[in-house]
Amino acid sequence: MWVVQTTLPGEWIEAEVGAWSSELVEKGFAACVQRDRITSVYSWDETTQSSEEWRLVIKTNADSKDLLIETILSNHPYRTPQIVAWEASSTPGYSDWVQG
Amino acid sequence: MWVVQTTLPGEWIEAEVGAWSSELVEKGFAACVQRDRITSVYSWDETTQSSEEWRLVIKTNADSKDLLIETILSNHPYRTPQIVAWEASSTPGYSDWVQG
Amino acid sequence: MWVVQTTLPGEWIEAEVGAWSSELVEKGFAACVQRDRITSVYSWDETTQSSEEWRLVIKTNADSKDLLIETILSNHPYRTPQIVAWEASSTPGYSDWVQG
Repeated sequence: MWVVQTTLPGEWIEAEVGAWSSELVEKGFAACVQRDRITSVYSWDETTQSSEEWRLVIKTNADSKDLLIETILSNHPYRTPQIVAWEASSTPGYSDWVQG
Repeated sequence: MWVVQTTLPGEWIEAEVGAWSSELVEKGFAACVQRDRITSVYSWDETTQSSEEWRLVIKTNADSKDLLIETILSNHPYRTPQIVAWEASSTPGYSDWVQG
Repeated sequence: MWVVQTTLPGEWIEAEVGAWSSELVEKGFAACVQRDRITSVYSWDETTQSSEEWRLVIKTNADSKDLLIETILSNHPYRTPQIVAWEASSTPGYSDWVQG
């Protein structure tokens, strides 16, 4: 299975983030989407900036990972969304559930 | 070292999650258990559902990882707990501490 | 790209954590530093302890990873800071941005 992370703008209300997450689940690209709020510090336009954001941590299977990332990119409000992905192991029970 | 994640029901009060985490540490299967609260979106019974949960991120060593996961499974209130595990590197100082 | 995690004392005010994070970005060792608050359970001095902490999740590139960790160690208030690092993949757009 794979863990895929992205962020969404902190100005989005919870219902918008919920709807955006549900779409990934309903299309079958994500087994589970967890969200929480973070503060990000980064460099942009040669100055250090700080933003409130939603962090989304998504579990998916190897077959769906590329489609999931394509869907995130095409639905995302940022020009260069943060996408971070890594492979992980699990128990047989949870892996079966993520395989769908 | 390994990072192992699971979730617990959001209805649990903080003291219950603390006691559940302490048991993993006291049995020697976990070097450290970090918790925070998340909202999860997932598919269950063919509908998309959303729940508040506790997220537990556990650091352990390679020798204890399988026993840790067995202990989580046997103590867990869910029939199919979320278990996600991946290997990570560290500094010599912190690795020594996780080796215990 | 690499994901590197550490924690800072929960007693630090947000401005201190922000300044500490900005320094990593301004020195060019971190593309992005995300923070949130967690509760940690761990064993210390043979008792189980619990602390509020800041969790920092840092994205960096392979060339900067070792310098980033050295800088964290030399700036860190703990004698044995938690350092957890793993390699991750990304999209070409975000990878380019992390390469700097």
